[in-house]
Amino acid sequence: MTQTDDARLPLHARTHDDLLRRIRAGEWPHDVPLPSEGELAAEYGISVGTMRRVLGTLTSDGLVERRQGRGTFVRRAAFEHSLARFFRAGDRVPASRILDRQRVAAPADVAHALGSSGEVLHLLRLRLLDDEPYLVEDIWLPLPAFEPVAVAALDDLGDLLYPAYERLTGLVVAAATEDLSVVTASADDAVVLGCADASPLVRVERSARSVTGQVLEHRISRGPASRFHYRMEIS
Amino acid sequence: MTQTDDARLPLHARTHDDLLRRIRAGEWPHDVPLPSEGELAAEYGISVGTMRRVLGTLTSDGLVERRQGRGTFVRRAAFEHSLARFFRAGDRVPASRILDRQRVAAPADVAHALGSSGEVLHLLRLRLLDDEPYLVEDIWLPLPAFEPVAVAALDDLGDLLYPAYERLTGLVVAAATEDLSVVTASADDAVVLGCADASPLVRVERSARSVTGQVLEHRISRGPASRFHYRMEIS
Repeated sequence: MTQTDDARLPLHARTHDDLLRRIRAGEWPHDVPLPSEGELAAEYGISVGTMRRVLGTLTSDGLVERRQGRGTFVRRAAFEHSLARFFRAGDRVPASRILDRQRVAAPADVAHALGSSGEVLHLLRLRLLDDEPYLVEDIWLPLPAFEPVAVAALDDLGDLLYPAYERLTGLVVAAATEDLSVVTASADDAVVLGCADASPLVRVERSARSVTGQVLEHRISRGPASRFHYRMEIS
Repeated sequence: MTQTDDARLPLHARTHDDLLRRIRAGEWPHDVPLPSEGELAAEYGISVGTMRRVLGTLTSDGLVERRQGRGTFVRRAAFEHSLARFFRAGDRVPASRILDRQRVAAPADVAHALGSSGEVLHLLRLRLLDDEPYLVEDIWLPLPAFEPVAVAALDDLGDLLYPAYERLTGLVVAAATEDLSVVTASADDAVVLGCADASPLVRVERSARSVTGQVLEHRISRGPASRFHYRMEIS
């Protein structure tokens, strides 16, 4: 290694940190690629090789992703698929049916979770596998931020909500906290899920946040405990 | 930075990798500290400052831990406490009661998990919080490796098994895979746990491995689903 290589180290770190700051600040929306390696290298006054290493680090950290022939994009977490971590679905992708959508006064626990009292948008959503009930979800969204979701045609929401949120409101889910517990099916849940009254369900309570930590959605999903499975590695 | 600093970088990395190899090879048992910073620095022909950085990295990676006034030790994962991640225990540490200990022919699934057919040691273990049943566990251990556990006084096994395994056999649990599911209580489990027959239990199936990947223990723990809670962060 030469002294030139050595001097490059802090510059690599500084460039990485500044790009991270810009990603977190939302400079690049979901459909806008980052500038090319060459453009970024010129902007930071570093070699293309060093910029490639910086982008390599951001890629392996899961912050950006390269899309073949389209460029480098800020990565969206694939949260919508994440409940499949808990409830066996095989290779099938669940479909979505919004059973109810209403503006309601926030229940106390929802107001607490969203950090805002007043009116919220409530969705009751059924997820299906091959037309069979898979999960039922209560979803609460703050208003007026999610007003576009309140007025959109239900068909426009599609099977995955987070891309719809981003498309309609520009708000991006970047992180979440999930709490798992086991409950018994309410009479309503039993009807919707087609299971016996009071049969065990696994309940996943999720608070989803933006990059800045703002809670964008509070969601309580329930599915049959018989379908529940979760694997983890500890070391 | 000077060129001397620069040349130190690969040396730091090489020293780190070699110490990691020695830790994994089991060079330092649970009660034997690593040599001092000064001794290790002399052995590798590097400065004490560089060795301190190497040990700092191993510490922050959770591979070694410094114990006040005693030195640096290879860290043992605190797996015994890890079921408290799933079953609410408050601040209390569960006690342990071995209800049964027998040499048995390995059931097929256990033989598969342990990668060894033939005779195994089976423990039926009850864990208690304030003398109330908390969890029940079936534990299988390969023989003859765990023969010392088969013949030890039950009192010598204590409330935490992994330190006992290490003390009695020298074998150290370093990693594990856990599978969570929800089951209904068998008649036996209901009696031991003091719950209703067929009431929902959360089942944690764990395969615990040595640093070299050898399966040392297969364990199936069950606890009341009403006590189950698990939080995770995703991003």
